[in-house]
Amino acid sequence: MLIGKVIGNVVSTRKCESLLGSKFMQVHLIEDGKETDKYLIAVDAVGAGVGETVLITTGSSARLALPKSRDGGEVPADAAIVGIIDYTN
Amino acid sequence: MLIGKVIGNVVSTRKCESLLGSKFMQVHLIEDGKETDKYLIAVDAVGAGVGETVLITTGSSARLALPKSRDGGEVPADAAIVGIIDYTN
Amino acid sequence: MLIGKVIGNVVSTRKCESLLGSKFMQVHLIEDGKETDKYLIAVDAVGAGVGETVLITTGSSARLALPKSRDGGEVPADAAIVGIIDYTN
Amino acid sequence: MLIGKVIGNVVSTRKCESLLGSKFMQVHLIEDGKETDKYLIAVDAVGAGVGETVLITTGSSARLALPKSRDGGEVPADAAIVGIIDYTN
Amino acid sequence: MLIGKVIGNVVSTRKCESLLGSKFMQVHLIEDGKETDKYLIAVDAVGAGVGETVLITTGSSARLALPKSRDGGEVPADAAIVGIIDYTN
Repeated sequence: MLIGKVIGNVVSTRKCESLLGSKFMQVHLIEDGKETDKYLIAVDAVGAGVGETVLITTGSSARLALPKSRDGGEVPADAAIVGIIDYTN
Repeated sequence: MLIGKVIGNVVSTRKCESLLGSKFMQVHLIEDGKETDKYLIAVDAVGAGVGETVLITTGSSARLALPKSRDGGEVPADAAIVGIIDYTN
Repeated sequence: MLIGKVIGNVVSTRKCESLLGSKFMQVHLIEDGKETDKYLIAVDAVGAGVGETVLITTGSSARLALPKSRDGGEVPADAAIVGIIDYTN
Repeated sequence: MLIGKVIGNVVSTRKCESLLGSKFMQVHLIEDGKETDKYLIAVDAVGAGVGETVLITTGSSARLALPKSRDGGEVPADAAIVGIIDYTN
Repeated sequence: MLIGKVIGNVVSTRKCESLLGSKFMQVHLIEDGKETDKYLIAVDAVGAGVGETVLITTGSSARLALPKSRDGGEVPADAAIVGIIDYTN
């Protein structure tokens, strides 16, 4: 899993129906407590906001962390924000 | 997920039957708003055109974003264009 | 699979319900016996402690190594600590 | 998905039974029309030959592109050549 | 898929039950016939020995190449040695 800082949103009107309602966030990865320039887009599963430090899961596990899409299937995402990080130690 | 700019098409006549009808697009990734030289091929699920900025999902989730292949199975793709991006902020 | 050294914990109170009870560990990868700065977060499946050298599995296999979540589903993790390493030779 | 140039074969007599009959090809990736030194092995699903430019799918989708193994299961490959590329534009 | 040279073993006594009996090998990847410092751990499915050049499959396909674990489930590995390489050409 990855740690990241939410740096913004991504807005897409014309998209797959199974992504309707998904909130796409721009994230910079944080490694060893330092923000890097590694960059990805993740679908939010926990109500994360810009500036928050979050836990991200990737690959097929991202789908498991997200509610079903409106058509009852899995959301075709490959990264999901699954937690807000309080602290690391 | 990834953001990319569609830079062209890929034409393949001799291919797996399950890929008949798939539209393959060349994409350069965009990170932090800047086009990079990171490069991949994605199957279009939303009618994207050359020059457009798109949202891409990779791995097994790409298959979920695509309509079934003509033989009724899943399309054996590992990347799909799942949205046209309006803007990031 | 990967070898890593556990360097700390990650604490997240607000997270997906399916991650309740998961213990998130910060890990530096070890390659050829040397600790690198490659960094990831893995869910502990074996009771690993900070400072221990561990075996990690990634991707969908990580879910198989973890007990079911409290709601009976699979834990949406993409990396799991699956063993404590005695030695390599 | 990836574009590559087939540069050779890999011969393995002692292998998993589920790989009997699979043809393993050495591939250099092509990005932006230029052959790189990125290197992988892919199982051929379309009768590709050395020197040809091919389309490759990776991960679990590779298994979907390949015929079943002789024991009726899926071929345990993580990359498959799924098309011969005519041209990119 | 990847080609690698087996450079050693990994011994782990305290591990997930589903990994009991698995043989973990340290591998250096070989690309274009040259051993690199890219490093991974793979579970052996073919009786490979130190010094041998092997074919490796990664991701969920690794599980398909391995016999079931003692509890009847899939082995939670993300890389498996699936063949001994005779030669490349």
